[in-house]
Amino acid sequence: MMKDLPLSKVYQLLEPGPVVLLTTARNGRANIMTMSWHMMVEFEPPLVACVVSSADYSYAALRTTKECVIAIPSLALAPKVVKVGNCSGRHLDKFKRFRLTPAPAERVAAPLVAECFANLECKVADTQLVNKYNLFILEVLKAWIDPAQKNPKTIHHRGYGRFAVDGEMIKLKSRMR
Amino acid sequence: MMKDLPLSKVYQLLEPGPVVLLTTARNGRANIMTMSWHMMVEFEPPLVACVVSSADYSYAALRTTKECVIAIPSLALAPKVVKVGNCSGRHLDKFKRFRLTPAPAERVAAPLVAECFANLECKVADTQLVNKYNLFILEVLKAWIDPAQKNPKTIHHRGYGRFAVDGEMIKLKSRMR
Repeated sequence: MMKDLPLSKVYQLLEPGPVVLLTTARNGRANIMTMSWHMMVEFEPPLVACVVSSADYSYAALRTTKECVIAIPSLALAPKVVKVGNCSGRHLDKFKRFRLTPAPAERVAAPLVAECFANLECKVADTQLVNKYNLFILEVLKAWIDPAQKNPKTIHHRGYGRFAVDGEMIKLKSRMR
Repeated sequence: MMKDLPLSKVYQLLEPGPVVLLTTARNGRANIMTMSWHMMVEFEPPLVACVVSSADYSYAALRTTKECVIAIPSLALAPKVVKVGNCSGRHLDKFKRFRLTPAPAERVAAPLVAECFANLECKVADTQLVNKYNLFILEVLKAWIDPAQKNPKTIHHRGYGRFAVDGEMIKLKSRMR
């Protein structure tokens, strides 16, 4: 189902700023949250910075296990993505509630999200700015892409549930990677 | 021309992941670069993390002056945005070369970009991760919006000069800010 994606291409997924899901697993219990505050930090091995609020239930799992999966949903999943963001996993199995399918990852205990077109298995690489800003540096260990989802459109949060959906693609002559 | 934007709304501009321009000024000389690696870190006062490579000419100016402007271009500027990213300001006045108009900022020496629909005056708030990751934490001191540019479409880099342009806007019932 899911195919290997070379780590050198991971930045092409996250650099455009899509809303993503972040999964964790702690004491055998998986959880999932919605996240928009992330950016690339290094091409390869891919490093990603993200902010996970200490008010989020996922925060303790991420700090303790130092592992997560970043899963990238396409437009079709937008209603579920918002619902996942609207509630806490503290007293709720969000995978079950929103009918999302956890799938085993290869390098981490946190699950992939089978419905997402890309999944990035990550370990926490740096916690220097966690106490001050809730800012984690992640290293992507393994990346998966679902070849069955062709040209997925991602969504970009504009505040209060408004999202811009990917529109036309343009190509300009660039020397930038 | 440019109107005040409340600082509480800045995240709505950067969270969706647009390609931006970053200006600096050092010893009376302004420069401009293209940047996609940025994210929100805090709502208000707005904190923004960004990666400016030590290979970029802007890096030394940002480190030394601890000031910059993040300017957000719309689709119409895309060809110039790519050209700005394709060359270095080391031996070139990129504002002149690409006919972009520097305008005085209020709180920093770095210029606004008059053609951009939003401009964010920033100071460097934290340099802890600069040596290791070229990662700066910026605080937005003042934000400007150009009311003449209605519903600007931003661009999102997908690697090698391919960009997704903002498409349709959707609204979902969200408790997320």
